[in-house]
Amino acid sequence: MRLNKWIMPVALLGALLVAPSAALAAPRSFPTPQTVSPQLQQLIGAEPAPYWDIHPQSAAEWKDWVSSMAERAVQGLPSLREKLGVSVSPGNIGGVPVFIFTPKDLPEANRDRVLLNLHGGGYVLGPGEAGTQEAVLMAGIGKYRVIYVDYRLAPDFPYPAAIDDAMSVYRELLETTPADKIGVFGTSTGGGMTLILALRAGAEGLPLPAALAAGTPWTDLTKTGDSYFTNEGVDNVLVSYEGWLGDAARVYAGEHDLKDPMLSPVYGDVSGFPPTLLTSGTRDLFLSNTVRMHLKLREAGVPADLIVFEGMSHAQYHMLGDAPETQFHFQELARFFNRWLK
Amino acid sequence: MRLNKWIMPVALLGALLVAPSAALAAPRSFPTPQTVSPQLQQLIGAEPAPYWDIHPQSAAEWKDWVSSMAERAVQGLPSLREKLGVSVSPGNIGGVPVFIFTPKDLPEANRDRVLLNLHGGGYVLGPGEAGTQEAVLMAGIGKYRVIYVDYRLAPDFPYPAAIDDAMSVYRELLETTPADKIGVFGTSTGGGMTLILALRAGAEGLPLPAALAAGTPWTDLTKTGDSYFTNEGVDNVLVSYEGWLGDAARVYAGEHDLKDPMLSPVYGDVSGFPPTLLTSGTRDLFLSNTVRMHLKLREAGVPADLIVFEGMSHAQYHMLGDAPETQFHFQELARFFNRWLK
Repeated sequence: MRLNKWIMPVALLGALLVAPSAALAAPRSFPTPQTVSPQLQQLIGAEPAPYWDIHPQSAAEWKDWVSSMAERAVQGLPSLREKLGVSVSPGNIGGVPVFIFTPKDLPEANRDRVLLNLHGGGYVLGPGEAGTQEAVLMAGIGKYRVIYVDYRLAPDFPYPAAIDDAMSVYRELLETTPADKIGVFGTSTGGGMTLILALRAGAEGLPLPAALAAGTPWTDLTKTGDSYFTNEGVDNVLVSYEGWLGDAARVYAGEHDLKDPMLSPVYGDVSGFPPTLLTSGTRDLFLSNTVRMHLKLREAGVPADLIVFEGMSHAQYHMLGDAPETQFHFQELARFFNRWLK
Repeated sequence: MRLNKWIMPVALLGALLVAPSAALAAPRSFPTPQTVSPQLQQLIGAEPAPYWDIHPQSAAEWKDWVSSMAERAVQGLPSLREKLGVSVSPGNIGGVPVFIFTPKDLPEANRDRVLLNLHGGGYVLGPGEAGTQEAVLMAGIGKYRVIYVDYRLAPDFPYPAAIDDAMSVYRELLETTPADKIGVFGTSTGGGMTLILALRAGAEGLPLPAALAAGTPWTDLTKTGDSYFTNEGVDNVLVSYEGWLGDAARVYAGEHDLKDPMLSPVYGDVSGFPPTLLTSGTRDLFLSNTVRMHLKLREAGVPADLIVFEGMSHAQYHMLGDAPETQFHFQELARFFNRWLK
């Protein structure tokens, strides 16, 4: 077993940065499964993210925490891009800052296709390029050009700033690229935003993207869904809704109803959605966020596919650059988009 | 919320029959999710199956328990068949007793298609027609002719009797029906046997069935897989490997290696498998049995689809006749077989 050379897991990063504000109410300990790769075993066996229960009391406190997380997150990115042969160029689309990631060996079939990536982090984490690791991995492993949206963050910019920015990029992109050549993907909050973007596009009469990949999407911003309870203290990344996560929901939503489909897409009308791939893990606090959405899509007749990783907590498929599970995940995304994009 | 009129849930049946031999070591209690139907809420909110920790000490004790379970299980079957318009005829195929279920309104497209059903019950439960509820639901909701295999049970008939019987039926069926018109499905042990049948067919040089549906399949007869631990005491049907379940594995396998792919198909070579649909639930003790197999199939390039039901413990999708989740499940099976059977 060896430490990942490219990206330090977010869980370990946090340990260096933030002292926990409260002890875990109900720590639950289980054997580390031998049914996953040694790299993933290392993540699964790690202590719960020590920052899970941080509760910033002001915009300044949020930004201090977010900045310290971001500082460390960006450190591994240059070597990851180099290793995967991915170039990055900053840009601006529709008035929104973006980063465009391009693999050196972009296949002919993907030259006029593009993927939009919406990053995670509870609408508060991931400023600048701090949230780009998923985009880099998709460009490098999946061999796609990826446009990463550096959307505005709460608490300075609450709902609907983040999704407004994503829509601005999508709308502008449609001027040059037909919708049937555009895929949208993201993880956690970015997975939720991927689904919300499709709802918004429908509501605005825009053509929908050709395909969506929503990784462990935050589809319900209230503590509704069975795994918020059954996987509480089992998931070692988010750990519990009662930590920073629930605070972030309220900081972003402000006075808006948390069950508004533009915040919690599991309550939206998904008829007519394009093919959608959803991903979760057996220990994921968002397992129910994921499967509730999957069931809803299938009930609506949408071709919706689901992958659940063995032993995995929230979003760990993009926390290790060299785990076989990471390779598999981004290859599955590529196969999915290859199939559905024109 | 009303009690199901057709089938008494297995969990409730057990309560009437068997006193628990030991208290649940680690009872885990969670709120009943409001994100599922009232019928399913009733199952999820039920106490753990009181027989989960029974440990029969002899063949006679196994048969006493199995008989008492079977007596009650068959009581709801005539009304279920009537309600769904399904007729039953006993028969014998390849020397093995079978029950053939036919819906009154068999669609033209399905007249020369057939589904083989392998029932669950840890290789010990479900003698005669006691395990036929899944076959009836599939015939009635999915509108398929279903051949139910009444295979021999342990402890009288240990490995490989059960799968030998299933193979005898399949081999004989191939004499009259091309493999591309045959689907195989089953739940739990029957889900595992569905996968093992495909392994055996491959090993024997027989054509493989056109499609497989393995519901929460017992793919690893050892206590290997993360959800054997994380969902222990969360699943209220099987509850724990340490109950009758682990005993049944040993009673069936005898001296054979429990990791032999003919007992634990997750260790088999699945290359060339036909399209496979797998089903589980977020509370299912066999969630890892299911997702490990799903991942393995996808890694082998097999078109493998996964559905995970919100809040569901082991196999509850066929314990209620009138739950929307039951309807959805069997409609999904029908869509799947409609797509892949010639």
